[in-house]
Amino acid sequence: MFLSASMGIRMIKTIKEGSARLYVPNVNKPEQGRGEGFYNPAMTKNRDISVACLAVLFKVSKKRAKNRMRICDALTATGVRAIRYKKEVGGEVWACDVNENAIKLARKNAHLNKTKINFVNKDANAFLSENGFDFVDIDPYGSPVGFIAAAGRSLGREGYLAVTATDTAALNGVYPRVAERRYGIRSVRCFYSKELGTRILITSIIRILMQQDKAFQPLLCFQDRHYIRIFGSVSRGAKKCDALLDKMKYIVADKDMWEIREHPSEKSIGPIYIDTIQKRNFCVSVLKELKKRNLTGQNIVRLAAEELPEPFYYDTHFLSKKYKKPLVSLSKIIDTLSKRHKVSRTVFCPTAIKTDAGLEKILAAME
Amino acid sequence: MFLSASMGIRMIKTIKEGSARLYVPNVNKPEQGRGEGFYNPAMTKNRDISVACLAVLFKVSKKRAKNRMRICDALTATGVRAIRYKKEVGGEVWACDVNENAIKLARKNAHLNKTKINFVNKDANAFLSENGFDFVDIDPYGSPVGFIAAAGRSLGREGYLAVTATDTAALNGVYPRVAERRYGIRSVRCFYSKELGTRILITSIIRILMQQDKAFQPLLCFQDRHYIRIFGSVSRGAKKCDALLDKMKYIVADKDMWEIREHPSEKSIGPIYIDTIQKRNFCVSVLKELKKRNLTGQNIVRLAAEELPEPFYYDTHFLSKKYKKPLVSLSKIIDTLSKRHKVSRTVFCPTAIKTDAGLEKILAAME
Repeated sequence: MFLSASMGIRMIKTIKEGSARLYVPNVNKPEQGRGEGFYNPAMTKNRDISVACLAVLFKVSKKRAKNRMRICDALTATGVRAIRYKKEVGGEVWACDVNENAIKLARKNAHLNKTKINFVNKDANAFLSENGFDFVDIDPYGSPVGFIAAAGRSLGREGYLAVTATDTAALNGVYPRVAERRYGIRSVRCFYSKELGTRILITSIIRILMQQDKAFQPLLCFQDRHYIRIFGSVSRGAKKCDALLDKMKYIVADKDMWEIREHPSEKSIGPIYIDTIQKRNFCVSVLKELKKRNLTGQNIVRLAAEELPEPFYYDTHFLSKKYKKPLVSLSKIIDTLSKRHKVSRTVFCPTAIKTDAGLEKILAAME
Repeated sequence: MFLSASMGIRMIKTIKEGSARLYVPNVNKPEQGRGEGFYNPAMTKNRDISVACLAVLFKVSKKRAKNRMRICDALTATGVRAIRYKKEVGGEVWACDVNENAIKLARKNAHLNKTKINFVNKDANAFLSENGFDFVDIDPYGSPVGFIAAAGRSLGREGYLAVTATDTAALNGVYPRVAERRYGIRSVRCFYSKELGTRILITSIIRILMQQDKAFQPLLCFQDRHYIRIFGSVSRGAKKCDALLDKMKYIVADKDMWEIREHPSEKSIGPIYIDTIQKRNFCVSVLKELKKRNLTGQNIVRLAAEELPEPFYYDTHFLSKKYKKPLVSLSKIIDTLSKRHKVSRTVFCPTAIKTDAGLEKILAAME
């Protein structure tokens, strides 16, 4: 194939995602990519939801009129994210990658899609430290922790940050020490791990941006397959940061249950951000965009929009096993509880509920 | 003056420091510097000790033979630090400043001193993210916290890091919330604040570098006037990082006393690194260099070299007031205690001792 010789890429295939047609390396794992950049079809849902999020933020942006909202895909690889942002939303789009071959391929993809994207062949931290954006997307292979501070510097007084983490094993409690090194908080393996891991990542982002007196406010967060995805707003202000600190509590977490406490104790972890991580209005708007554009991820965003702000969920399968209760359908449990209590499903687990009812009443509803 | 017109600097004076002659802006505060870079004579001791530290590290460096040790003064201002490193120690020296006028002045200073320094007019984080060094010096106006991660990336597998913090009010407990936002640990105002603040800064550096699986090991640390200065080594390794985590404990700190605990409790702060922060052999070597070069700071480094590794000190003036004891001379108290206990002075307070004797025996020695 004509691309191969000039770019050192052995095999190229063409795929379609959203509005974009793309040349991508014909490999199954990033390690096989030999530096051309890896295209991960498993991330299509992530990108679909990201397009919808950006569309919502673009609509409220003061810079919309002149199409001047500055968007940065800091680790672009094949360029798919940047190209979709440009074609499906608009704005000034920048795409950065430290790998020269990745940028070459991304350029060809932009050309193929007739999109005008500013490509930069540079270290992402160096690029973000010197350039200001309104929306920064950090979608690395592995942990995003090393890019958050530079993204914060790039966002100036205010902006939006989107973050992917694929090191879910560390965050979800499989490797507690790795989480402690990387995110500053010990994780725990438990039935509500997915939300705990997501909140550990959020807490870490909040802490890093707080060093710059910037407050990170989550808008939409979920786990899908092997990644965590977080969207949030960033705005400068020491008082806003202090308000976030007030929303961090200690979790006494074991595999059977959790307890939230004001103060630390021998077995507690944290402090962890325990306030709402799904901003309902935002999620509802994103869902509308997804429907309008006929994109995937609608079920995820619908669950996020409906989710109660209470931290952590009860997995009914886990409870059924532990307390020897029959496996009642989730709808039935929700129906029973909702007569007297707040109750919702959760984006983090298909067999779980969030509720203020307390364990006893949940168990009663499972009879 | 000839410099003024071309550089937009209103007043320039010439000064001498160490081996260097320098043009510096004729201002008393950095705010008056109008971006030409500020020369702070109160930092001479800091730079004297830094020269001696670098000289010691240079001697053990494998790159010494070819004079290839790469040294970075990441926030150079007038260039004084870089020029002294080059003239008084050697190696390949790079000096970076985001301010164009500062770099112009620093260039003239390098020329005046006939030193070959590589100047870079760039954001420090951007520069450090893309270039590798063996020794990185972070000497900002204010908090260094925003530069540590990029310095870590720059140091690669191993190297040395020197850090100045001038936001001592936050670190030493005057503004506990600022410390919590910036360094992730609440500080406390107490008679051992200076060491506590220094350890909070060290803990923060350790935490940030740990995100890259890099272990920071302090070698020499002190407070002088309004700044904290820390020298340490950085080396890659997850296990080394875990070993550092094991050396972090919780401090129950109030203005009257401290208590170190394995686990957190309602009133504890931390976890804080409680292992030794002065590496004796290193400090002794630095002291020798200072003497040989007839530089200032000898008393500070001597105290650091002799300091016991135990965290925190007893201020005898504070104890005398609190327990209504006579003001006995420090030498006499040390003489009395040293018969049965380990005891030393401390670099952090001229009226204080470190000892394993415990409060009662100290009070007895004060009779």
